Amino acid sequence: MTLTQEKFYKEITPSGFGIAIKQKEVLFSKQSDFQKVEIIDTDSALGRILTLDDLMMTTEGDEFHYHEMIAHIPMMHHKNPKTVLVIGGGDGGTVREVLKHDTVEKVVLCEIDGMVIEACKKYLPTISCELDNPKCEILVQDAIEYIKDKENMFDIILIDSTDPMGPGEGLFTEEFYTNVKRSLKPGGIMSAQSESPFVNKEEIKKMYKLLKKVFPVCATYTSNIPTYPGGYWAWAFCSRDIEPLSYFDERRAADITKTCKIYNKEYHNARFALPNYLRDILSDNN
Amino acid sequence: MTLTQEKFYKEITPSGFGIAIKQKEVLFSKQSDFQKVEIIDTDSALGRILTLDDLMMTTEGDEFHYHEMIAHIPMMHHKNPKTVLVIGGGDGGTVREVLKHDTVEKVVLCEIDGMVIEACKKYLPTISCELDNPKCEILVQDAIEYIKDKENMFDIILIDSTDPMGPGEGLFTEEFYTNVKRSLKPGGIMSAQSESPFVNKEEIKKMYKLLKKVFPVCATYTSNIPTYPGGYWAWAFCSRDIEPLSYFDERRAADITKTCKIYNKEYHNARFALPNYLRDILSDNN
Repeated sequence: MTLTQEKFYKEITPSGFGIAIKQKEVLFSKQSDFQKVEIIDTDSALGRILTLDDLMMTTEGDEFHYHEMIAHIPMMHHKNPKTVLVIGGGDGGTVREVLKHDTVEKVVLCEIDGMVIEACKKYLPTISCELDNPKCEILVQDAIEYIKDKENMFDIILIDSTDPMGPGEGLFTEEFYTNVKRSLKPGGIMSAQSESPFVNKEEIKKMYKLLKKVFPVCATYTSNIPTYPGGYWAWAFCSRDIEPLSYFDERRAADITKTCKIYNKEYHNARFALPNYLRDILSDNN
Repeated sequence: MTLTQEKFYKEITPSGFGIAIKQKEVLFSKQSDFQKVEIIDTDSALGRILTLDDLMMTTEGDEFHYHEMIAHIPMMHHKNPKTVLVIGGGDGGTVREVLKHDTVEKVVLCEIDGMVIEACKKYLPTISCELDNPKCEILVQDAIEYIKDKENMFDIILIDSTDPMGPGEGLFTEEFYTNVKRSLKPGGIMSAQSESPFVNKEEIKKMYKLLKKVFPVCATYTSNIPTYPGGYWAWAFCSRDIEPLSYFDERRAADITKTCKIYNKEYHNARFALPNYLRDILSDNN
């Protein structure tokens, strides 16, 4: 490749297709104790992107698609979410959305890799902007260890993890989910990113089999994410006692809709309607 | 690039990002009177792909995302769709979905480029399989001319066009939409592909301004399409007299759901819930 050729950031899934983005400049590239952390500036509407071990985590241009969905869907189904735990999510986007709920008194961010937090604070300020909020407590720690001895502590737990490989692997086990369930207060809800329905069928099957063993309530919701494989993403909605859409906080929904690029009540309600092929993946017969 | 390097089919939108697919072999490549027509075999879950003037039209692996949505959403809101016009759609995928409705007596496919039809019949048989159905009449003709003198002829008109540039440009004008409206019978519904909400904001604005001038009812629905820009696509739902979700054909919906990878009633109903940023694009103040 000559220097005059356009350079592309490419991420191809095992399915043989993926995303290509016009690359401008690598702003940050270091190997942490856990993974390769990179911030790349692009010549595209996506702006700067964060990658971990060469997998796209978030982009300035489309991050709201993910962060609004992981946070607001579970939180609107809780009557009074005061304490929130975010696992992973070192870029800060999920914390930013959580803190839009005026009921929240404390959000704990438990991120294993301090380098992710530092890189995002420096290079992705529109995403990491609330990490210095006094309501946010940052723990640079392995969430698997952190949660082992917790009980009845959180109203909401959001698992904003990488894929079920590398540092994120232990966040997709029955033991971990059992610890999460015990850490939830009555009425508590967990949501967890659960991969691409179009691309990661086997991973989804495996993950939901475990979740259904652990949680009495286990539902799935989906939404569009332009830069994730298949342009389509799923999240698990799990609880001991709260069915999705059984309670809906109208006041917070109205307030928060004003600050969101995606989220509104009608869009929220539509998230639990799944295509047939995903219903099949999730069915107990598969 | 050396011959030993992997070759990628890349399609980058003006937004600076897009899709990359491992390419195996170009099966068909010819310049027609209207455009460059190519069928490319890929080393991916997408299988073979059809491109027109280097823009992705459809893939064997994900075509159902598009074809089920353009056809079944309007057709379930019609009490007894007998006559259907498909404009563009030379790959045959939309005709295949239309013919799943047992009420249909005739579907006219009006495609300007006969080479598209022939290439798809030869290389994309799972998509084009119903083009030889006796209920399907194929007209290799410019739809702009075809529709000029039609009146009160079709229950459903589906505009399965390319983008608003090149041969498809005339399918995005007030004159054309006026002719479509006149060609619909009472209770008739038009749906039209209306580009990517995340990538084609200006094109969407322009298109819906015209549609709203022409049609008393003009709504928008969206769904995921893995290989289209942003992984997310919009369709217009237009009519003189039928509001979306005002009538729903339960019997056909139940039957057709069994044959679909995406379509079911709950998923259908959720299609009209739009994200805030698309509501803003469509608002009359913008």
